[in-house]
Amino acid sequence: MEATTSHLRFAFLAVGALLLLLLIRSSLHLSSTDDQDLLDRTTNPKISVRRSSHHIAQPRSQTATAAAAGNPFPTKPDQLRRTPHHPLDPLTIDEINTARAALHSHPPFSSSPASVTVHSLVLEEPDKGVVMAWRLGDPLPQRVASVIARFRGRTHLLTVELEPARVASHAELDPEATTGYPTLTSEDMTSTTWAALSDPAFNRTVLARGVRLSDVTCLPISTGWFGATEERRRLIKVQCYSAEGTSNFYMRPIEGLTVLVDMDTLRVVSISDRGPDIPIPRAAGTDYVYPASDADRPRTATVNPISIEQPKGPSFTVQDGHVVRWAGWEFHLKPDPRAGVVLSRVAVTDPDTGERRSVMYKGMTSELFVPYMDPTEAWYFKTYLDAGEYGFGLQAMPLVPLNDCPRNAYYMDGVFAAADGRPYVRENMVCVFESYAGDIAWRHAESPITGMGVREVRPKVTLVVRMAASVGNYDYIVDWEFQMDGLIRVKVAFTSLSVFPCSYTVITTIVCANKKAAMCVHGRALLLA
Amino acid sequence: MEATTSHLRFAFLAVGALLLLLLIRSSLHLSSTDDQDLLDRTTNPKISVRRSSHHIAQPRSQTATAAAAGNPFPTKPDQLRRTPHHPLDPLTIDEINTARAALHSHPPFSSSPASVTVHSLVLEEPDKGVVMAWRLGDPLPQRVASVIARFRGRTHLLTVELEPARVASHAELDPEATTGYPTLTSEDMTSTTWAALSDPAFNRTVLARGVRLSDVTCLPISTGWFGATEERRRLIKVQCYSAEGTSNFYMRPIEGLTVLVDMDTLRVVSISDRGPDIPIPRAAGTDYVYPASDADRPRTATVNPISIEQPKGPSFTVQDGHVVRWAGWEFHLKPDPRAGVVLSRVAVTDPDTGERRSVMYKGMTSELFVPYMDPTEAWYFKTYLDAGEYGFGLQAMPLVPLNDCPRNAYYMDGVFAAADGRPYVRENMVCVFESYAGDIAWRHAESPITGMGVREVRPKVTLVVRMAASVGNYDYIVDWEFQMDGLIRVKVAFTSLSVFPCSYTVITTIVCANKKAAMCVHGRALLLA
Repeated sequence: MEATTSHLRFAFLAVGALLLLLLIRSSLHLSSTDDQDLLDRTTNPKISVRRSSHHIAQPRSQTATAAAAGNPFPTKPDQLRRTPHHPLDPLTIDEINTARAALHSHPPFSSSPASVTVHSLVLEEPDKGVVMAWRLGDPLPQRVASVIARFRGRTHLLTVELEPARVASHAELDPEATTGYPTLTSEDMTSTTWAALSDPAFNRTVLARGVRLSDVTCLPISTGWFGATEERRRLIKVQCYSAEGTSNFYMRPIEGLTVLVDMDTLRVVSISDRGPDIPIPRAAGTDYVYPASDADRPRTATVNPISIEQPKGPSFTVQDGHVVRWAGWEFHLKPDPRAGVVLSRVAVTDPDTGERRSVMYKGMTSELFVPYMDPTEAWYFKTYLDAGEYGFGLQAMPLVPLNDCPRNAYYMDGVFAAADGRPYVRENMVCVFESYAGDIAWRHAESPITGMGVREVRPKVTLVVRMAASVGNYDYIVDWEFQMDGLIRVKVAFTSLSVFPCSYTVITTIVCANKKAAMCVHGRALLLA
Repeated sequence: MEATTSHLRFAFLAVGALLLLLLIRSSLHLSSTDDQDLLDRTTNPKISVRRSSHHIAQPRSQTATAAAAGNPFPTKPDQLRRTPHHPLDPLTIDEINTARAALHSHPPFSSSPASVTVHSLVLEEPDKGVVMAWRLGDPLPQRVASVIARFRGRTHLLTVELEPARVASHAELDPEATTGYPTLTSEDMTSTTWAALSDPAFNRTVLARGVRLSDVTCLPISTGWFGATEERRRLIKVQCYSAEGTSNFYMRPIEGLTVLVDMDTLRVVSISDRGPDIPIPRAAGTDYVYPASDADRPRTATVNPISIEQPKGPSFTVQDGHVVRWAGWEFHLKPDPRAGVVLSRVAVTDPDTGERRSVMYKGMTSELFVPYMDPTEAWYFKTYLDAGEYGFGLQAMPLVPLNDCPRNAYYMDGVFAAADGRPYVRENMVCVFESYAGDIAWRHAESPITGMGVREVRPKVTLVVRMAASVGNYDYIVDWEFQMDGLIRVKVAFTSLSVFPCSYTVITTIVCANKKAAMCVHGRALLLA
């Protein structure tokens, strides 16, 4: 029958296209797991990097501008040479390598080190009492790594002492007695999307909708709860998009098509296809990346370069890369793969008495839960744990100087462990800067009636610690803001590219995601964040 | 009897002290009604002006810094030469003088021009239809002054056409049929406090509390409602303080002592003395004015100078002194004696279509009501109408460059009429500037999974129109903030010196008013504003 022949041809073409796609994808993605120890996947030169928006002058790296601007932070600590100076300092590159070696020589991992997947490898912080008692100049307490690893389908929790290197504790979780899984690794996220793309049934569905496989981009999303049949398996759902004609693929979802993947076997468990008739929204007008030519830019953003002026430089200092001091405040700051940033031993000195008051021992983002609460099958399971599943720190891309943070900011790198246990550097992951918006903290002018002529003003200056986590189409900007009156203000700003399917014509939410996104998405932050 | 002699001596001393005080006060205050046409009472050289807080570099006038900083606003319009260019432009010096002359030659005022008190003399705006139809280059509609005056105990409402000058309408209000009175003049406020200080009974009470008359500072405060006996009289209550040892006299109230004054006769109607036993709080630790020597300053404010950097200058323009344009926004801005600032014909241009949309015809502060709601006799009547009674514009003292507004701000003068109808200039009453706090309006970074390497950021820049009204111990900072997404955000910030009597020892609210005021008063803004 002609119909059968047509189906066969179609299947042949589909498999061919798939193979080609896998080849293309491999060249893009596999490079991120090569053996460059300090490779930050976000700056992989093999990945094409689009030109980013230059809102002020030329965004340049902090070191490049240092000489000209009299920047008091001319060089960041060299991560290759960094040693810990404080009990809470994050693990160094050497320490991560030491922990990895100890792990690989520890049974049962020693039987097959390549099968060990590291989901978390961070400092095991000393007890609070030890940290509180420690003073600058004291010897550091024993440095210990805390490890969460997967090995042959099981989760292992370990602590590894680093001097001398030895596994100090080791617990293997019983999968029958435990629910829950460790944070996804970047490698999990990548391999999961491959699993979907390597499934013939999935590809047939995509092609049937008229989408070329080479245009398909997929993301691992939430699992949700679908009853006992899906429990005790490391499952995740994959949502795919057409990136044809736009970098804003979120606006072109293959709606109603959800792929369930087993992350341990990397096989597709099932495909839910409830939307074959839902058209894919058009690409026109959805791109938000500023074109390279100034002339093509939207007319809204025509303001002159602007930043924060500090003729005598910033007023804060960063000791040994992690202890920040400003206007009576002192705290330890470190990047963290799960929480993003962790602030510890926050203290403020009373200006009248000189007394140092401890304000907070430890502060961080514990979780960010995003339940969509849409009752359709393709949406109801979307109940993201954006910190715990994806890692606020792991998803925090490098901050762009002068765009993400103003002039005179201090930038801090994150040093994390990849799935294979090797360290890598996430450059400029955190910034610290003094903020001044032209605002007044306090003022008093005296009325002429009194004849006093008082004109007292205290401009409002604050210190901000910032990181920005990009979890899928959501960008969270986490600011810890310190005021001179002893107040700490934690702000979680939210901007996004819309994914709501709406009516699939250019209506409000779709307009929001096009080149005007800078404005109207910002206005939606209070609704969604 | 010795007691009687003592009382006589006391009375003699009191009257002597009063006369001395009146002499001193006259030399300070009467100067503000002399014949310098353009005298701004806030910059009267005969009033001792204390050194104000210099938070950044050297606050200098806009004109002084212009050359060095490449300021695009090198000179403000010369008020003496200013002519109107827009139907909504405020009255010029010439126009106010013309209106005054017309008023003084108009019966019955012509019989005694010196008896006319001008409570309001502002532009009578043309009808909305006329303003909306007007285009740049069109001839201006007839310029008309709107006048509220008092003459021999009666209130008069007039309109005065200016070319040629003639009174076009005149209504005398029937005091039996009308309630309410015009906004206080600065002269009302000054003369009212003199009335209290010239009352022997009042002075005896003050001296009985151990307060020297030379230390007494009084302010005209709210009237409140005390029943029919006080109706249809222009009454006000006066509250006094001891300014001994502090510029923060608000913290040293002569509690429970309230003087009721008739503003038309300038006589004390009655004295309510319910607190002779309430001690006056001590002065120690209440002053908030920064000492001249840096070494003596509080240790909290030790941050380096900071302002807003705009290497290519601001992105907004001000046409003919009043029409502001920025990032698609356009509006007419003028100072106003009652409202502070008035924004008119606010429009925004859609960046996609180029269409100009009218957003708001006229925006201003209509009123700010401050009911204390404390049931004691000395407090319950405090129900201030801070704009309508005192005038938000009349109480808006000159803004201090770099302290009240950041570098590159444009400053606008107010031109108002004094009680005698003469024009005066309130310099730097309003400022306009671009604000940037290092914040992000919108961003998106793409996850490495997608291989896109997107790093798009739109820093958040806004345009701010600011004025600050100091009504007694309260300072209101009124900001009209324009965002690039078409949103207008009106902010009324509030800072103050505390006047709450509390327990009259150094407790929280009193600590707030001492040299740490910059911080903790700010924290109270949400409670009180």
